[in-house]
Amino acid sequence: MTGSSSTFPKNAWYVACTPDEIAAKPLGRQVCGEKIVFYRGVDNAVAAVEDFCPHRGAPLSLGSVKNGKLVCGYHGLTMGDDGKTIEMPGQRVGAFPCNKRYAVVERYGFVWVWPGDQQTADPALIRHQAWAQSEEWTYAGGMFHIHCDYRLMIDNLMDLTHETYVHASSIGQKEIDETVPITKVEGDEVVTARYMENVTPPPFWRMALRGNHLADDVLVDRWQICRFSPPSHVLIEVGVAHAGKGGYHSDQQHKVSSIVVDFMTPETETSIWYFWGMARNFNTRDEGLTQAIRDGQAKIFSEDLEMLEQQQRNILAHPDRSLLKLNIDSGGVQSRRILERLVALERVRES
Amino acid sequence: MTGSSSTFPKNAWYVACTPDEIAAKPLGRQVCGEKIVFYRGVDNAVAAVEDFCPHRGAPLSLGSVKNGKLVCGYHGLTMGDDGKTIEMPGQRVGAFPCNKRYAVVERYGFVWVWPGDQQTADPALIRHQAWAQSEEWTYAGGMFHIHCDYRLMIDNLMDLTHETYVHASSIGQKEIDETVPITKVEGDEVVTARYMENVTPPPFWRMALRGNHLADDVLVDRWQICRFSPPSHVLIEVGVAHAGKGGYHSDQQHKVSSIVVDFMTPETETSIWYFWGMARNFNTRDEGLTQAIRDGQAKIFSEDLEMLEQQQRNILAHPDRSLLKLNIDSGGVQSRRILERLVALERVRES
Amino acid sequence: MTGSSSTFPKNAWYVACTPDEIAAKPLGRQVCGEKIVFYRGVDNAVAAVEDFCPHRGAPLSLGSVKNGKLVCGYHGLTMGDDGKTIEMPGQRVGAFPCNKRYAVVERYGFVWVWPGDQQTADPALIRHQAWAQSEEWTYAGGMFHIHCDYRLMIDNLMDLTHETYVHASSIGQKEIDETVPITKVEGDEVVTARYMENVTPPPFWRMALRGNHLADDVLVDRWQICRFSPPSHVLIEVGVAHAGKGGYHSDQQHKVSSIVVDFMTPETETSIWYFWGMARNFNTRDEGLTQAIRDGQAKIFSEDLEMLEQQQRNILAHPDRSLLKLNIDSGGVQSRRILERLVALERVRES
Repeated sequence: MTGSSSTFPKNAWYVACTPDEIAAKPLGRQVCGEKIVFYRGVDNAVAAVEDFCPHRGAPLSLGSVKNGKLVCGYHGLTMGDDGKTIEMPGQRVGAFPCNKRYAVVERYGFVWVWPGDQQTADPALIRHQAWAQSEEWTYAGGMFHIHCDYRLMIDNLMDLTHETYVHASSIGQKEIDETVPITKVEGDEVVTARYMENVTPPPFWRMALRGNHLADDVLVDRWQICRFSPPSHVLIEVGVAHAGKGGYHSDQQHKVSSIVVDFMTPETETSIWYFWGMARNFNTRDEGLTQAIRDGQAKIFSEDLEMLEQQQRNILAHPDRSLLKLNIDSGGVQSRRILERLVALERVRES
Repeated sequence: MTGSSSTFPKNAWYVACTPDEIAAKPLGRQVCGEKIVFYRGVDNAVAAVEDFCPHRGAPLSLGSVKNGKLVCGYHGLTMGDDGKTIEMPGQRVGAFPCNKRYAVVERYGFVWVWPGDQQTADPALIRHQAWAQSEEWTYAGGMFHIHCDYRLMIDNLMDLTHETYVHASSIGQKEIDETVPITKVEGDEVVTARYMENVTPPPFWRMALRGNHLADDVLVDRWQICRFSPPSHVLIEVGVAHAGKGGYHSDQQHKVSSIVVDFMTPETETSIWYFWGMARNFNTRDEGLTQAIRDGQAKIFSEDLEMLEQQQRNILAHPDRSLLKLNIDSGGVQSRRILERLVALERVRES
Repeated sequence: MTGSSSTFPKNAWYVACTPDEIAAKPLGRQVCGEKIVFYRGVDNAVAAVEDFCPHRGAPLSLGSVKNGKLVCGYHGLTMGDDGKTIEMPGQRVGAFPCNKRYAVVERYGFVWVWPGDQQTADPALIRHQAWAQSEEWTYAGGMFHIHCDYRLMIDNLMDLTHETYVHASSIGQKEIDETVPITKVEGDEVVTARYMENVTPPPFWRMALRGNHLADDVLVDRWQICRFSPPSHVLIEVGVAHAGKGGYHSDQQHKVSSIVVDFMTPETETSIWYFWGMARNFNTRDEGLTQAIRDGQAKIFSEDLEMLEQQQRNILAHPDRSLLKLNIDSGGVQSRRILERLVALERVRES
């Protein structure tokens, strides 16, 4: 796969994995078509190189880390985090071909990787995540491997009308359908916001209200503010407040609010690593609540997984059909436009 | 897949499913290369449209039926049985592209579909099945998904010498091999008949004799009359009568006879939905017997399934080898000729 | 697949199966791209023909053997071990196309097949296996189906430095890495030998020492002499002797030694049937020991299987990368040269 045929920008920071995935041993994971091994190297810092031993092609991810260096599990070649072979029993390794190394940063509870042109990898470009650094917030989440184009997931998250149908028993409610969202493009960001007033809270939110010691049998104001930023990150401010208290802007004691965190990382053109979770700033020490929210989210996102994989298969089986772009799809459409622009820009630079 | 490259006629009635398959929710099934959703629509009538939501390509079969209308499970688009979008929350749907609709008829205990040119779909062309409408007959059967060209199954059913080998422990017997069948072509129908006299009934028929309160330890006359009709239906009159009582023409009290019902529906060029069963006109209220026959048939047809899938794989692995057409294959050969004629005719019409 | 594009010689003897695999019924197995049915024919002699019934293409391996003749399980065609149809119920078979027959020999506890030009199949070309015919030796082994190029397994076996990494808990030890092996080419044979002195025996060898009633807590001399012979056979003399007693040449009472037997048979360009085992000439009647060695080997070779399949996938995913040929790879490199020569020779003969 070359960058010029891909549908995703490669000069961007993607979430590669969570720290627990590299705690015990190296992790082999394909990101944007690149097979990469992630591990903790010198001083426990995250490191990433091409997952291919220059000796005989074994995946380095089958090996181990010794003294901060990656050791191939087949014949013991030792590689540095710059992709250069350091040593190999009985060999002079100076002329060994160098592996590609990948810029990798541990931040906000994730390991981030820049799969494209390494010259342009600037850690300052990782978008700031305030919730991840604040004492007042807590986070829990998970990861799914999904067989769909990463853009189908962006569409999904930037148009929450699907909640009414896909998640009818948890967060869906008729008023989502009935409330037209407002979409704005702000530079490279797309924001789609929907505000509903005087609605009955659906089961997931009743659980959250109780979790924050608030009455769950009253009408609420509800909001969903979806923010897309490239390459594939969607953060959604969601919440409910007791009706008439100011809604989104109400005082903390009248509401439960949180941020749905969605980092999609393309594996191939039609498969992704989907990191999902929820950050919240209420009742943060209640681990039972954290677990209940996480379980609820896992169930909800499993419903999306099923729909998206079937949608992907159906689209591939109907190459002649085009999709509609309605007002509710505006968030996804605007996000795709930004992505197309970024991908086109990469092509120009390459050529 | 276009009609012009297919090996099956598309302007024909095929069995799509049985009513129980659409009782609880819509059914997505590919027929002759077309992905179709089948469901009960207005007034509980069967309906079928392309299984593709014009909005974002989700399979409509993941949705539900509300007030006789198909509702997409992703964003709630509602489609009529004419393939036109009726409504969608917050949208004007007049300009939405129309889905292909498929003529579909519920008859004889099956749902029939016409996957080709809808202008030519005439329910009168569904071949009459007398056994399915008579009080004197009962029917039970099942369905298998088999990875083989539908014509391999026609060959199988139009040459029952394979019973001696594939079904040695149930319906096979040496005399099948030793009796030359007579094949006749009558218009679009092919009939292959074999009559055996004074033979020992094999286990399946001994069970059936007992089921009809007849002695099972005497010699019998046995018959097999296979009737192929396009596109892919084979009905086989089978039975045994106590020897010397007139065989096929003997009085009802001396024989057990039934019709093996085989409706093959191509999914792709090399896979089918195989609807099989047995209709009988003796001891029809004995549900234990019905079950015993159905179980016996399921076991027998499983043996065919294994052989046909392996045969298909072997043929694909040997593209340079051609198959023999012997006298015993005459039923299949004649059936294939009719099919080739029908397919060629469709190509002419298309061009 | 034609011989001219393959990476393996076809005019060679390969191990097809073990006798137990054809004891009860015919065996269908693909060797060097040829789908072959192996069975015991006339006088219980092994026989092999193309696994394709000339009638309707069913695999003959689904059939049975009657009176030494292969009977197709679909319609009863009977084939001789010369690939000619002998009879078929109700048919004149003289003009039936003839199946390819394969030279096949039962020897040394294996069934050997010559998949290429049958004119050149000479049983005298099966390399002599002294251990298999001697009363003083016993043998036990197994078979794995592995998804890798057969040459990756030759590389693996001709460079045992991988034991240090892949088999660290059983036969690996640091001294293997530290001792440079000597590789010699002797005609069509390649020999790679490594001798280590005064080393601690690793767990597998301690078990073997105890199994031969020798102290296992003393230093030993250890040897590994790998012998490749075409097309794909690697026999490895391995053993340890109590240190200072003469090593490889020490008296029988001071050592345990055995031969690791590896016969690789290509199924396709990237998959093999791997027959592995160990022949030993000590304590040969101890069946508990035989079982312990076989279990130990099965575990060790499972580790190779995992590594080789991942290596194969990684190489296929990196078509642009070439592999290094180091001094430790010399055994594999020399073996590949012989194979390339043999394959080139076959191409010349074909053209």
